[in-house]
Amino acid sequence: MNDKKKIVLIALGGNALIQKGQEGTAEQQFENLKLPTRQIAKLSREYRLIITHGNGPQVGNLLLQQESCDEVPKMPLEIIGAMTQGQIGYMIESSLDAAFMEAEGSVDQHFVTLITYVVVDENDPGFQNPTKPIGPFYPEEKAKDLPYRMVKTDKGYRRVVASPKPIDIVEHREIKRLVDLDFIVICCGGGGIPVIRKERRFSGVEAVIDKDLASSVLAREIGVDIFLIATDTPGAAIHWGKPEEEMLGKVRLADMERYAKEGHFPAGSMGPKVEAVMEFNRATGNRGIICHLKDIEKAIAGEAGTEVL
Amino acid sequence: MNDKKKIVLIALGGNALIQKGQEGTAEQQFENLKLPTRQIAKLSREYRLIITHGNGPQVGNLLLQQESCDEVPKMPLEIIGAMTQGQIGYMIESSLDAAFMEAEGSVDQHFVTLITYVVVDENDPGFQNPTKPIGPFYPEEKAKDLPYRMVKTDKGYRRVVASPKPIDIVEHREIKRLVDLDFIVICCGGGGIPVIRKERRFSGVEAVIDKDLASSVLAREIGVDIFLIATDTPGAAIHWGKPEEEMLGKVRLADMERYAKEGHFPAGSMGPKVEAVMEFNRATGNRGIICHLKDIEKAIAGEAGTEVL
Repeated sequence: MNDKKKIVLIALGGNALIQKGQEGTAEQQFENLKLPTRQIAKLSREYRLIITHGNGPQVGNLLLQQESCDEVPKMPLEIIGAMTQGQIGYMIESSLDAAFMEAEGSVDQHFVTLITYVVVDENDPGFQNPTKPIGPFYPEEKAKDLPYRMVKTDKGYRRVVASPKPIDIVEHREIKRLVDLDFIVICCGGGGIPVIRKERRFSGVEAVIDKDLASSVLAREIGVDIFLIATDTPGAAIHWGKPEEEMLGKVRLADMERYAKEGHFPAGSMGPKVEAVMEFNRATGNRGIICHLKDIEKAIAGEAGTEVL
Repeated sequence: MNDKKKIVLIALGGNALIQKGQEGTAEQQFENLKLPTRQIAKLSREYRLIITHGNGPQVGNLLLQQESCDEVPKMPLEIIGAMTQGQIGYMIESSLDAAFMEAEGSVDQHFVTLITYVVVDENDPGFQNPTKPIGPFYPEEKAKDLPYRMVKTDKGYRRVVASPKPIDIVEHREIKRLVDLDFIVICCGGGGIPVIRKERRFSGVEAVIDKDLASSVLAREIGVDIFLIATDTPGAAIHWGKPEEEMLGKVRLADMERYAKEGHFPAGSMGPKVEAVMEFNRATGNRGIICHLKDIEKAIAGEAGTEVL
């Protein structure tokens, strides 16, 4: 047992694996992972670590491959999600292995990738009105024949699914035990596999969970000391995209809540990240940070990112 | 810590998920998993458990989907393997959850699915002469253009990869710790993700590992009390397929070695299973069993299967 080192949960954004404009070959994903994993290797000297990650482009690619092939049974979204947890978990573990080798000359650290479920409420309003677009764009004639709820976009029709609010990370006790045993735990991939409770058992559902909100639930359940969301901007800004745009540094929770109410953080991008760190800080009083992927170390040192106090 | 209950490692054959003649829908795989998981739920009262499994048909399906879609970057075999570990691990965990609910009325047992690597030797003769066929069959004109080593079969051309001998399960200490904490651990899916050591770090390779041989390595590294391979026949037979065919019950190691030398066990099917239980028994003196999927409980009670003494 090691309960002296503080625990940091790092939620890696999609750009940790596939950057804008990239098609996302295995080589690109491994190359991109060097940036966060080198920082994580250094941080492990001082902190116990939990890593979560997104899976949007990887799910999209698997769905497109499924649609392209009628010879093979199509898997439901929950199983596609489980596949990407295995895939990305493996890529992060391999990259950590290389980063530790580079930093320390040996790999004494143990890593573990856990397939993770997240409980959602079957009465979540998200299920009545699915709004989260996933997977490929289809022309109208193809879209008509697909057994999915579709939405029309500029680039064609797209499947939409529910994005219910995460309630409980099923494996949070297991994750805490592994962290206490000094493992670096990779979990909650893509926000976790959504399940609902039917009486006392779990059942997978067709939905996707926001990975930042799921990571926030896990951070609270475990009681981590620092919850950090690493993304492709230096932090959260007010008046975003306008001349008076101002990047936020250290902000008190009450001020952040006011900015959020005033609509400074767009629903599809910065909104859930700000909500995730606010919920965490409100529940624990601990540090919640949003920063650029290249600034993970600096942000933990208090020298970069937007931090809710 | 729980070190009083004996440890059983159960290697589930492909038929635990997809039976002969089935195309392998998610529904079929969940339905098939009821048979082994109901037995595993009962066995958990008396034993600590490790579950390993195959992934042949699932890898084949993902490869076929990859080939059918040129819009998405193709992933190397190691990543396809990691995907199936996530996929099948999720399906086994969900099925165990349901089986415990049915047997106990509640689920107090914790499960964990681990992404697992297996070290192989880069000088393994398998890499010089790949013989393991994987994935779809191709017509000759298509096969010519594919960047893989191919072999001609009755049904068309097929990709072949190396099947090197497993040396070390990278996560065996982690698995042992989790078993000691009373988790049911699902691991080593599809024989594990094959990696070679380059100096002191790991690197994925294009190969597949026999899941029974990998499970045998894990069984020895952990020092399990019983190693059981569950498959689609009642056990190993001598004079297989001939009028004098005789199913083997309890057999001494020396006799089994003689039968193996005499060529009673075909290389592509029963051969590696017999080799796996013999290697285990030789190293530990403990019970190594091959039995039908429906006979797991009976075989552990000593009432079914072929057992090496």
